[in-house]
Amino acid sequence: MSSKYKSLKEECYEANMQLNALDLVVYTFGNVSAVDRGNGVFAIKPSGVPYETLKPENIIILDYDNNIVEGTMRPSSDTKTHSFLYKNWEDIGGIAHTHAKFSCAWAQAQKDVPIFGTTHADHLTTDIPCAPPMSDDLIEGNYEHNTGIQILNCFKDKNLSHKEVEMILIGNHGPFTWGKNAAKAVYNSKVLEVVAEMAYLTLQINPEAQRLKDSLIKKHYERKHGKNAYYGQ
Amino acid sequence: MSSKYKSLKEECYEANMQLNALDLVVYTFGNVSAVDRGNGVFAIKPSGVPYETLKPENIIILDYDNNIVEGTMRPSSDTKTHSFLYKNWEDIGGIAHTHAKFSCAWAQAQKDVPIFGTTHADHLTTDIPCAPPMSDDLIEGNYEHNTGIQILNCFKDKNLSHKEVEMILIGNHGPFTWGKNAAKAVYNSKVLEVVAEMAYLTLQINPEAQRLKDSLIKKHYERKHGKNAYYGQ
Amino acid sequence: MSSKYKSLKEECYEANMQLNALDLVVYTFGNVSAVDRGNGVFAIKPSGVPYETLKPENIIILDYDNNIVEGTMRPSSDTKTHSFLYKNWEDIGGIAHTHAKFSCAWAQAQKDVPIFGTTHADHLTTDIPCAPPMSDDLIEGNYEHNTGIQILNCFKDKNLSHKEVEMILIGNHGPFTWGKNAAKAVYNSKVLEVVAEMAYLTLQINPEAQRLKDSLIKKHYERKHGKNAYYGQ
Amino acid sequence: MSSKYKSLKEECYEANMQLNALDLVVYTFGNVSAVDRGNGVFAIKPSGVPYETLKPENIIILDYDNNIVEGTMRPSSDTKTHSFLYKNWEDIGGIAHTHAKFSCAWAQAQKDVPIFGTTHADHLTTDIPCAPPMSDDLIEGNYEHNTGIQILNCFKDKNLSHKEVEMILIGNHGPFTWGKNAAKAVYNSKVLEVVAEMAYLTLQINPEAQRLKDSLIKKHYERKHGKNAYYGQ
Repeated sequence: MSSKYKSLKEECYEANMQLNALDLVVYTFGNVSAVDRGNGVFAIKPSGVPYETLKPENIIILDYDNNIVEGTMRPSSDTKTHSFLYKNWEDIGGIAHTHAKFSCAWAQAQKDVPIFGTTHADHLTTDIPCAPPMSDDLIEGNYEHNTGIQILNCFKDKNLSHKEVEMILIGNHGPFTWGKNAAKAVYNSKVLEVVAEMAYLTLQINPEAQRLKDSLIKKHYERKHGKNAYYGQ
Repeated sequence: MSSKYKSLKEECYEANMQLNALDLVVYTFGNVSAVDRGNGVFAIKPSGVPYETLKPENIIILDYDNNIVEGTMRPSSDTKTHSFLYKNWEDIGGIAHTHAKFSCAWAQAQKDVPIFGTTHADHLTTDIPCAPPMSDDLIEGNYEHNTGIQILNCFKDKNLSHKEVEMILIGNHGPFTWGKNAAKAVYNSKVLEVVAEMAYLTLQINPEAQRLKDSLIKKHYERKHGKNAYYGQ
Repeated sequence: MSSKYKSLKEECYEANMQLNALDLVVYTFGNVSAVDRGNGVFAIKPSGVPYETLKPENIIILDYDNNIVEGTMRPSSDTKTHSFLYKNWEDIGGIAHTHAKFSCAWAQAQKDVPIFGTTHADHLTTDIPCAPPMSDDLIEGNYEHNTGIQILNCFKDKNLSHKEVEMILIGNHGPFTWGKNAAKAVYNSKVLEVVAEMAYLTLQINPEAQRLKDSLIKKHYERKHGKNAYYGQ
Repeated sequence: MSSKYKSLKEECYEANMQLNALDLVVYTFGNVSAVDRGNGVFAIKPSGVPYETLKPENIIILDYDNNIVEGTMRPSSDTKTHSFLYKNWEDIGGIAHTHAKFSCAWAQAQKDVPIFGTTHADHLTTDIPCAPPMSDDLIEGNYEHNTGIQILNCFKDKNLSHKEVEMILIGNHGPFTWGKNAAKAVYNSKVLEVVAEMAYLTLQINPEAQRLKDSLIKKHYERKHGKNAYYGQ
């Protein structure tokens, strides 16, 4: 594989394999992409290829208008959602989509995941948003492209920043997450799944459970992400 | 093992071992068969043999009237359900039966699994049917044969096609799934289990959760199975 | 290890290791024994020894009056429950006790596990009994011996046979299971845990779920255990 | 690594790795420390370092005033909670903190874990306490130090002894556990998680489930921890 996109393909491949290792997908129900901003292209998993047989050289390279730049296989059926987000959010480096069970259950319940504890607040300061299902004309049109529009509209309606909230649930469908690179997007998929499971259990134990109070949200977020952050190396 | 059914036995063996690898069975609570339409026979797991000791040469070959064509062991106790379905649905190539926990829980609850999301709609466009438990005379008669009748009656009553809906729950019992071959039947058992778990979780989070709307069901099913499908290679 | 009880110790050791392999215990929260009727002794796990370091030669041999016949370690703290059952039920060959989570949850809920499906009916024809917690004087007296009395009283009160029902829950404590040998006792612990989980899920999906009807209970039990049984080899 | 704290670092390292092996953490969401009372120092995990790359020589040594004695990395962000507890409870030897899911769910529900059965009573005789979330001024002040104050206040308010109850939940956050050494602290984290899961399941099966009665609590605790204890070797 002598390609100028070799390292991009490898980053994308490794992130897709992590999705599988972290128990976030069964069969081929998920996909991760990674972007190369300098060359204006992104790498994505080929559609329907099992993880056991996936190889770095199977990864597809496309531009933001969904033209294939390199690769012989058909890209993920969700490709147009990825390209739409890369075009609109110029500072993200990777995107992940899964059908992980707790994330999907909240999406199917059409509920935001409430911020109940510090595991959640270590990563974001708001509920995890659930976008409503799309209108029929958006579904029947350019569906995957319009999924991207739905994500942007939800962030606009709820006044959220994609730099602070790196995850969303699409109602009746499942999660999309993103980050500075593909590995961080996958990390966010795992965090979302863990937080979604804890929130589910919390409400089973106490249906009247209260959201985390503002001072604690702020404290936990700041110690990890604030300008005086002291978490990590 | 020099047998004209060598490859059929191996297909059947591999599919049974997958059942185990996919965490769909404990002990011997499940069985898979594979059919050879040209020779008018099918292969099935021997009854009560643990997966750790199962070998391809243990697989039993029978005709559609349940006569043993090859094999020294007793076939699965559910054999007559398999033969009945092969006789009546001439276009299926494999059948799987498990006691997977979420599938069985819905069967024991005697509820169809509602279509709540795209994970479900990627595979079928209706609720997953749950056949009512059999009448006493059917149970006391030729039970496993009559289980096949119960399946066909349920599909007739609900106006379903076995080519579009490749799975069913038998009330108070558990799931049967089928497909073009044994591997696809096992795949459908896993999909059913995943969808059954997600639907369970969805209702725990929101007891008023709504079914997926028609436009979205159609979109997801068509992109994977329609004449302009663009999922997979 | 040259001992006349070498094979008994090995049977007991293997069964204890299975408990661990089948995910029925954490740490040392469980124990299995095996009996040698000819010599009037039984073998049991030493108390509090982790499975990672347990060896066949650590197994303790006792008579039915709890005198140590062979072995240098202290036997399981539940030993007197085992000896009591061996003394009173002369046809059983092994006993297992675990703190498996779904079994314990039903015991803590002080509820019999209802017979909801064929997975249950393949093994027994009644609900799985939950004995009430013991009276204070039985607890403060010879506790583990009295646990045996509690088990026998429960079977008498509910008119159950220990040859047909090889499992019980002790209220607020957990399960005891038995069988023709130690391996069968462990098998029954796993079956109980699986059936307890399915029953829990069934009631979550449908709180009004109905017990399996009599004809189906009889059919499934007979095909596996009746005189014309056709399950297994 | 030639250091006078070599064995302390190794004890701390092994305990942190156990947290991971026992499925109590994802990513870096947890930390364990071990104390050396003779030298007046403790060892703790460096902040945000993944378990796959963690090495014994990365472990940080600090005194009880949080001064780094040895180590080049930044210690766990929760370090001040550990030092506060070591200073105030002079007889403990190790502390563990996790974000295990059932423990966190009870913490997020702000509920004590009721003592429902003998699995719980084998380890402590009271409900597992859940401290209320801190007041805003404590949160905005020296947060991790104040988490220690919150723990001590909760034990004082509920009249509990840290020698008998080696675990607590911090409301909306998660569990802290301790013990005679780091391994025992980790053991207590696992016990708490198991007991928290069983209590959750118990209430799902029977919302009216009753606490274990006093005689049984006493019996089980005494046989393992009383002066005539007969559990273990």
